[in-house]
Amino acid sequence: MQIPILKLKNILLTSIQSDMTDDDALRYQADVVSFLEKSDAKGFIIDITAMDIVDSFMARVINETARMARLMGAKVVLCGMQPMVALTLVEMGRELIGVDTALNLDKGFDKLLEMISEGVD
Amino acid sequence: MQIPILKLKNILLTSIQSDMTDDDALRYQADVVSFLEKSDAKGFIIDITAMDIVDSFMARVINETARMARLMGAKVVLCGMQPMVALTLVEMGRELIGVDTALNLDKGFDKLLEMISEGVD
Repeated sequence: MQIPILKLKNILLTSIQSDMTDDDALRYQADVVSFLEKSDAKGFIIDITAMDIVDSFMARVINETARMARLMGAKVVLCGMQPMVALTLVEMGRELIGVDTALNLDKGFDKLLEMISEGVD
Repeated sequence: MQIPILKLKNILLTSIQSDMTDDDALRYQADVVSFLEKSDAKGFIIDITAMDIVDSFMARVINETARMARLMGAKVVLCGMQPMVALTLVEMGRELIGVDTALNLDKGFDKLLEMISEGVD
């Protein structure tokens, strides 16, 4: 099944679930970039509140998707990271370098709106 | 795969895709009500922008989910209906009676915030 991409104001919202397969993840990546092209979005949020485990493949996909969105001119915020996921990522040496983060979707949304209005990179 | 439910401010956001199976739809319904119970959400948005076809089962699921959310005290707005979906629903005689609608997610979100602040039913 396709992963929903919601557009609210000029921000794209996506949410990643734990039960996403590797194929879903690659399709998600392709969907995000094509949606970014079509829409006039200036920001992109990856919400991982529902993700309670992470493997190195998923970590790579999230990292790459964030980098792709940046290349297409969008500001990116990753939000909702569970404590165990943060622990695992650091232990795996995959720290999602260069991605802005926020504790939850509310904070991430506000942060992104601020980044967009300030033009922060 | 599970359908993501995003919580932004006090509003739950969900998006329905065309490629949702009947099982996914029933699981979605159960997820929404349990999420409504856990979260302190006052509003619930069903975004169907990505849904370009509809059958009578999906129409029933959307209708029922909206009614369940209302019973749990949430205001509900359905948004992003494609012209062909509206046409099909009316022709099928399933007009989603009693559900507030909006043209797109932006308008739906604003409408819901207004309904919540005014306490409109």
